[in-house]
Amino acid sequence: MQAIGVDIGGTKIAAGVVSEDGEVLAHTRRDTDATQPAAIEQAVVDAVAELRNEHEVGAVGVAAAGFVSPRRDRVLFAPNIAWRDHPLRDRLAADIDLPIVIENDANAAGWAEFRFGCGRDVEHMVMMTVGTGLGGAVIVDGHLLRGAFGAAGEIGHLRVVPDGHYCGCGHEGCWEMYASGRALTRAARASLITDADRTGALVELAGGPGHKVKGPHVTDAAQEGDPLSTELLADLGRWVGEGAASLAAVLDPEMIVIGGGVGSAGPLLLEPARRGFLAQLSARGHRPAARIELAELGNEAGVVGAADLART
Amino acid sequence: MQAIGVDIGGTKIAAGVVSEDGEVLAHTRRDTDATQPAAIEQAVVDAVAELRNEHEVGAVGVAAAGFVSPRRDRVLFAPNIAWRDHPLRDRLAADIDLPIVIENDANAAGWAEFRFGCGRDVEHMVMMTVGTGLGGAVIVDGHLLRGAFGAAGEIGHLRVVPDGHYCGCGHEGCWEMYASGRALTRAARASLITDADRTGALVELAGGPGHKVKGPHVTDAAQEGDPLSTELLADLGRWVGEGAASLAAVLDPEMIVIGGGVGSAGPLLLEPARRGFLAQLSARGHRPAARIELAELGNEAGVVGAADLART
Amino acid sequence: MQAIGVDIGGTKIAAGVVSEDGEVLAHTRRDTDATQPAAIEQAVVDAVAELRNEHEVGAVGVAAAGFVSPRRDRVLFAPNIAWRDHPLRDRLAADIDLPIVIENDANAAGWAEFRFGCGRDVEHMVMMTVGTGLGGAVIVDGHLLRGAFGAAGEIGHLRVVPDGHYCGCGHEGCWEMYASGRALTRAARASLITDADRTGALVELAGGPGHKVKGPHVTDAAQEGDPLSTELLADLGRWVGEGAASLAAVLDPEMIVIGGGVGSAGPLLLEPARRGFLAQLSARGHRPAARIELAELGNEAGVVGAADLART
Amino acid sequence: MQAIGVDIGGTKIAAGVVSEDGEVLAHTRRDTDATQPAAIEQAVVDAVAELRNEHEVGAVGVAAAGFVSPRRDRVLFAPNIAWRDHPLRDRLAADIDLPIVIENDANAAGWAEFRFGCGRDVEHMVMMTVGTGLGGAVIVDGHLLRGAFGAAGEIGHLRVVPDGHYCGCGHEGCWEMYASGRALTRAARASLITDADRTGALVELAGGPGHKVKGPHVTDAAQEGDPLSTELLADLGRWVGEGAASLAAVLDPEMIVIGGGVGSAGPLLLEPARRGFLAQLSARGHRPAARIELAELGNEAGVVGAADLART
Repeated sequence: MQAIGVDIGGTKIAAGVVSEDGEVLAHTRRDTDATQPAAIEQAVVDAVAELRNEHEVGAVGVAAAGFVSPRRDRVLFAPNIAWRDHPLRDRLAADIDLPIVIENDANAAGWAEFRFGCGRDVEHMVMMTVGTGLGGAVIVDGHLLRGAFGAAGEIGHLRVVPDGHYCGCGHEGCWEMYASGRALTRAARASLITDADRTGALVELAGGPGHKVKGPHVTDAAQEGDPLSTELLADLGRWVGEGAASLAAVLDPEMIVIGGGVGSAGPLLLEPARRGFLAQLSARGHRPAARIELAELGNEAGVVGAADLART
Repeated sequence: MQAIGVDIGGTKIAAGVVSEDGEVLAHTRRDTDATQPAAIEQAVVDAVAELRNEHEVGAVGVAAAGFVSPRRDRVLFAPNIAWRDHPLRDRLAADIDLPIVIENDANAAGWAEFRFGCGRDVEHMVMMTVGTGLGGAVIVDGHLLRGAFGAAGEIGHLRVVPDGHYCGCGHEGCWEMYASGRALTRAARASLITDADRTGALVELAGGPGHKVKGPHVTDAAQEGDPLSTELLADLGRWVGEGAASLAAVLDPEMIVIGGGVGSAGPLLLEPARRGFLAQLSARGHRPAARIELAELGNEAGVVGAADLART
Repeated sequence: MQAIGVDIGGTKIAAGVVSEDGEVLAHTRRDTDATQPAAIEQAVVDAVAELRNEHEVGAVGVAAAGFVSPRRDRVLFAPNIAWRDHPLRDRLAADIDLPIVIENDANAAGWAEFRFGCGRDVEHMVMMTVGTGLGGAVIVDGHLLRGAFGAAGEIGHLRVVPDGHYCGCGHEGCWEMYASGRALTRAARASLITDADRTGALVELAGGPGHKVKGPHVTDAAQEGDPLSTELLADLGRWVGEGAASLAAVLDPEMIVIGGGVGSAGPLLLEPARRGFLAQLSARGHRPAARIELAELGNEAGVVGAADLART
Repeated sequence: MQAIGVDIGGTKIAAGVVSEDGEVLAHTRRDTDATQPAAIEQAVVDAVAELRNEHEVGAVGVAAAGFVSPRRDRVLFAPNIAWRDHPLRDRLAADIDLPIVIENDANAAGWAEFRFGCGRDVEHMVMMTVGTGLGGAVIVDGHLLRGAFGAAGEIGHLRVVPDGHYCGCGHEGCWEMYASGRALTRAARASLITDADRTGALVELAGGPGHKVKGPHVTDAAQEGDPLSTELLADLGRWVGEGAASLAAVLDPEMIVIGGGVGSAGPLLLEPARRGFLAQLSARGHRPAARIELAELGNEAGVVGAADLART
């Protein structure tokens, strides 16, 4: 059965028809305004209608950032859209006569990676979505871990430094503050002050100092061989890996997949992450160590995973 | 079907016949010497034989501290007994003509609590066994989480303080070093130096200063109202709760159960743990918070859980 | 000999004629614009001229935030004004025919407290100026510690949390990020998220949520008995005291004086600071412990200290 | 005037006649037993008498580990000898008819380095004695900083990691636990567990695993090129340097001198220390940075410094 996956982001909606083996057969997009929840719902309805014109589908999966109820019908809380205990499924169902499920966006991306990406041969997997923030998905015995209240997999809020950096969630020291694009941007800007004479390449790429410098400039500069940027990515990778060792203590996965925008740094991030992981893995040598790999699916992971979860 | 549960500890073996509803119908014990692995196996065989004289049983579950293979047949590594990738099930099967499974001891205790104790009405639960060390068991959707390699639930090795106290595992800052009987003992001894004029009650109970002071003295003194000991337990409870908030970010359980010897401190530990948990729980107010409860089953949890897991 | 003290702040200049026993005999003020360094110098010249109309003075001391050269003639770096290795003394001397010295503002305030305030009877003292940031002054054997390059006493940049909050200086975990008005503001705003149901009094005083909430609202609310605000101040005080214990290990002062705007919280800050200090003081019981006291001089400490240092 | 310096260690006493320019003209030694305070005093008396047979001296300086009263007459507390508020000067004066002063041993060594070693041309200096523990001496404007109660310079008890490793002083996270021979030993032993396959060279040098491995083996192995040992020393050096940056914020010295047994690792320790220092130095680029150098005087620094302080 083909299904439609919809991925609601902060500025746009991506939607696609997804085959049973994870292929995206058709796409569409809509620009959205996060301050207009009703318009977002309408855009989802429109996108689904457009895709159904040409394709036979049996279900719709909708992914969004936020906590989703265990029954997959309500958005309990969304950080970027004004949804609070919002009956998103019922609202969409009024205009879409197909089974609909709502999913957390990181869970959708992780599920895609598990079903069709580099996790396709494992049964226990953790996906780390290292984007602006740090999202996660946990696969246990081939099932997506949703938790008692739908909030499982919020790995970015594992505390890694007591009294550490403030997170948007109001707490200090969340992993997300050390292993995300936001962390990379912040570290790069700090180095403008503390390590000014080594920031030439970075500032040139950014087109100026200060707030012009952002995480992607670090990745670009590192890929061109800039030593400081390479160190900044390595430090980020170390935090990714060290935190992953804590996850491994609890979950004992076979594979940890690194995706998200920062994951595009490739080996510059992956190798330090692997080293950090092994350096902190408890009982290394007395147990097999999880493999850490880069995600194989790109930006479409959310669409693919949402569609596939709608079939299950 | 009745089953036998065996709990192999450092100095003794406890075994019992357990009914389908978790009742212990008969007990036996053997003293053991952790340096004599062969003698331990013989003691297990003897204990099982003794119990079978009077009771009809259909399976045997054996719990031991250490990593157990996912197929529940081998002990990969045991911290206290010289078992390394040891085929314990086959060794016992040579003398016991019943189905046998090997389980991690903390998993067995957590499973008992989930099936017959305070977790009996939930589907997602974490058990924290706060004993000399800190063990754990994770129940997901009604199933025990074993992980890809049998090592899931080793929550004591979550890193909570970078560059923090050394753990027996060789790493720094493991949660076990802050939330265990060992942590309580260490903190109490430090207070003999830093807070000497407030340690009178503690020293009197311990029968002397220095290495005579141990965790249980703190619990006893706190229960008699000693302010310093109450603070020490509260600090331990805070670490229990704050770490549990990290677990909740990943696992989103409905209930977190505190057992183990230190759990006997009761509300003196539980209330600070609850406060620490809520203080650090990400997105509190936007999601239901897990309940934190004291374990209901006592020392027999390992026997009960091992027996019950042998039936599944 | 009477002297003039001038205290250059971010938005205004305060100046006064100070007697030999620290009394302020006359005042004047000028509003200033930190983006206009030349205008600031002119304002200093004008203020000095005005005061000299009515008073006989023999020297001028000028205090400013920033690093000052050991010879007390140049501002090496100022965080708020565009002075970089700036010959401030010579610039002023062109228009003022009196001996002039330039001093760091926290040093000036600490010196005033040492000479005429609560440190008047001690020889070893540390002043902590807990304002928006955290400044310091160290008095050793009755002398102001300037250091080899004029930068001593920058206690706010002692690192207290590795990988902790980012400081304006570009580093992580500076003490200033935990023991300052800025820290109080940040903690208060975080509690709006993590502890929303207890922030009613604070929000009411602030006239609204979010960025309206500032450190002084916490102090006001605490003084009216608000429990959350009292906790926030106590936490700040704990950081003040614990860091002071590190200073005591190095400097072994007889007295530590807490001044600055946050110091106005009085016992709500002082008592937790004292507890934190004693709790972390190494070798307590085997050495006398420094007393921690509130500053006695108010806003005029900078003027008084600058004037007095100009006489020495 | 020539003077005698005496350095009381845990197992032996070193004494020497020291010229005005810091030359040791004669030596003697006595083995001692730290559990016999009276015998230690007698050994000091004997050593002084022996040296005076052949040399004209005008004063005696006695260095010992511990807190010394500001009047340099009493040992307030000694960690290794059972002296508590002990009138050591008067006890010795009964048998030695020369002016006697008592000094802290790290202060004596630092003073020697300041007067005759690599600090001879500076006025503001910090000495770090990286031995089994971490001692310090602070020179301010050419004077030894003793503090209000004689306890200044205890830099090893600066807290660098909240909730970090326990120190013998009863507190957690003291710098000494991260930057000392004890730290090196502990880190090396941990790597036997966490990094077993890289510890071959270390174990071979130590003549076995476990408690046979000690700090000096790491230094030896690193000097022979062992990668793991080199990393362990680099990590230690990083902690030395990062902590020194905190000291620089407070004291602004011109030079930081690294001595003590671990200092013998030379560049393997020094270079990482310099990097760590610069990486964490607040306002680097806006102020001159202190130089970090290795001590020039060896084991005799305590004797030389004690003698020289007796002349002042």
